[in-house]
Amino acid sequence: MLINGKPYRSIWLDEETSNVHVIDQRALPWRVEIRSMRSSDDAYEAISDMTVRGAPLIGATAAWGLYLTARAEPENYEHLRRTANKLMKARPTAINLRWAVEKVMSGIDPNQDLRTQTRQLAESICDDDVATCSAIGDHGVALINRLTDGASPVNVLTHCNAGWLATVDRGTATAPIYSAQEQGILVHVWVDETRPRNQGASLTAWELHHQNIAHTIIVDNAGGLLMQRGDVDMVIVGTDRTTARGDVVNKIGTYLKALSAHDNDIPFYVALPTSTIDWTVSDGQEVPIEDRSDMEVTHLQGPDATGELQNIQVTHNSPVLNPGFDVTPAHLVTGFITEFGIFRPDELQSLRKLLAY
Amino acid sequence: MLINGKPYRSIWLDEETSNVHVIDQRALPWRVEIRSMRSSDDAYEAISDMTVRGAPLIGATAAWGLYLTARAEPENYEHLRRTANKLMKARPTAINLRWAVEKVMSGIDPNQDLRTQTRQLAESICDDDVATCSAIGDHGVALINRLTDGASPVNVLTHCNAGWLATVDRGTATAPIYSAQEQGILVHVWVDETRPRNQGASLTAWELHHQNIAHTIIVDNAGGLLMQRGDVDMVIVGTDRTTARGDVVNKIGTYLKALSAHDNDIPFYVALPTSTIDWTVSDGQEVPIEDRSDMEVTHLQGPDATGELQNIQVTHNSPVLNPGFDVTPAHLVTGFITEFGIFRPDELQSLRKLLAY
Repeated sequence: MLINGKPYRSIWLDEETSNVHVIDQRALPWRVEIRSMRSSDDAYEAISDMTVRGAPLIGATAAWGLYLTARAEPENYEHLRRTANKLMKARPTAINLRWAVEKVMSGIDPNQDLRTQTRQLAESICDDDVATCSAIGDHGVALINRLTDGASPVNVLTHCNAGWLATVDRGTATAPIYSAQEQGILVHVWVDETRPRNQGASLTAWELHHQNIAHTIIVDNAGGLLMQRGDVDMVIVGTDRTTARGDVVNKIGTYLKALSAHDNDIPFYVALPTSTIDWTVSDGQEVPIEDRSDMEVTHLQGPDATGELQNIQVTHNSPVLNPGFDVTPAHLVTGFITEFGIFRPDELQSLRKLLAY
Repeated sequence: MLINGKPYRSIWLDEETSNVHVIDQRALPWRVEIRSMRSSDDAYEAISDMTVRGAPLIGATAAWGLYLTARAEPENYEHLRRTANKLMKARPTAINLRWAVEKVMSGIDPNQDLRTQTRQLAESICDDDVATCSAIGDHGVALINRLTDGASPVNVLTHCNAGWLATVDRGTATAPIYSAQEQGILVHVWVDETRPRNQGASLTAWELHHQNIAHTIIVDNAGGLLMQRGDVDMVIVGTDRTTARGDVVNKIGTYLKALSAHDNDIPFYVALPTSTIDWTVSDGQEVPIEDRSDMEVTHLQGPDATGELQNIQVTHNSPVLNPGFDVTPAHLVTGFITEFGIFRPDELQSLRKLLAY
């Protein structure tokens, strides 16, 4: 998608240097900083220090990390295997990380040139991700199209960032929005700030701004009122993990928006690659919810009046609890927008059979 | 209530100087600053610049503003009348402001000493407010007591600040909590941060810290998960205006917590003096909702690592919408905790008849 009018992916091979480039997401929305990765250690660091985040992008970064190792030692399979084991530990809970590393390693012939093979495999992981997101956009845009009157914009509310920055390109929850724009459908996006890390205000709003899509940042408290007023036509969110029966584990606060959408008869959609469905779990309450650092709640960073980034304290003295995700029960979900089409929660089992072929 | 172990009201007459003192709430939780008001202009400013906030406290501040005028010119009724008109405009939407000014002015004999009369009337407004809040606490504590097992704390979730800082003492939503502590009932309070102005994190948590009541700050997104997990036993919030049928206009985000409480069978209570009920309106959606300044969303203040207060930007480039309140429909409210007892929404009409006597 676009940054200052120029198309980007969130990760790419620089043909001139053969280094791999990513956008440093910690600097957004204040500065666009490209970080060049020259080794698997750089890739490990980019994942663990959250230069990159979002399950698909983390996977892609690890895959390119293997390429960077193979580039340095194209005939040392043992070294590549050790790197693979290390990369899988860069962030413990990211499912796509392990998946991407295993995908590369299982595709490799140890006796052939590792550099060429890892490059091809990393490229194909990225291209597959873009194709998946594009397909999600193609299916999702039909839902937006159904709601348009051609004159006023369709109002979509989203939470957190399931945008192109979380994937390689186009995003999951944002893919139908970007497709709508390409088809000339008027869209306006309500962007939940998404405390505590403010990924909505910092990343989603930044994406939409550079893509020239009408949007408005609101605090997480405001979505209910907007739905009561009829100012929200649909909700689209992403998910970190969805269970076999359709319970949706996603960024903390998603459940409250789902309740409000349900109470106001507003369709609530979850956009996801089918790889995000965990067929081994049914009840979403069984998925362990990570408690994250207090610092995310107690401190915030941003520029002062002179433009200098400051880190300030926003709470005082009191204990803090910071759970990262909540569970939206399946009955609050209108449908899942996947690369294979749109499925109601009660249709997920059919999807599962489909995937088994 | 207590600050550093010493009892305070949020506004008081300093006997030595005859000036009126308030706590500068804009400096909380970082610094406790007492502001001395010497004239009605000082009172006007304290209300309009939000040194004081909270409907009952705004009313009390205006009443003391009239005293400060009468102190300067104890025989000039015309001047007092002009001051009254001016004070009523210090914040346009605060119902209690007009009510308190009219209460003082209608109680005055223009031919008697104005200084003594205004002082007595301002004192009685404050004492009445404390008595009302105490009665709310007495009734509300019975609800907490019902939930206690004597061993583990009763977990109360609250939103925004309907604490003693919003009133003269004890607060509305916090009054049952303070009463519970006095009766030795174990309580723990989940404090919603309450974006955008963070009155929960900055004021409610500060109150509870100084009162030595166990509490934990959470982001506004987190309450739903805690309710799903069974970690919330009841919700108590305040209200800016409640309609005749029991629709509750309160700080933005209240509605989302009410939905979640309903979905998880958790009692949802609204603590309020009966003066907050607007018997002229039935449908809460008819109450105009103030859109507040973008700056509340886009900027935040807090100390940096050296302790110096910094004002930082937290959003970039994007438009913002900042509605101040939402409407919780009556069917989501378990009961109203008033100075006259606890009433279900369908009992408000009986309460109205009672009040007419």
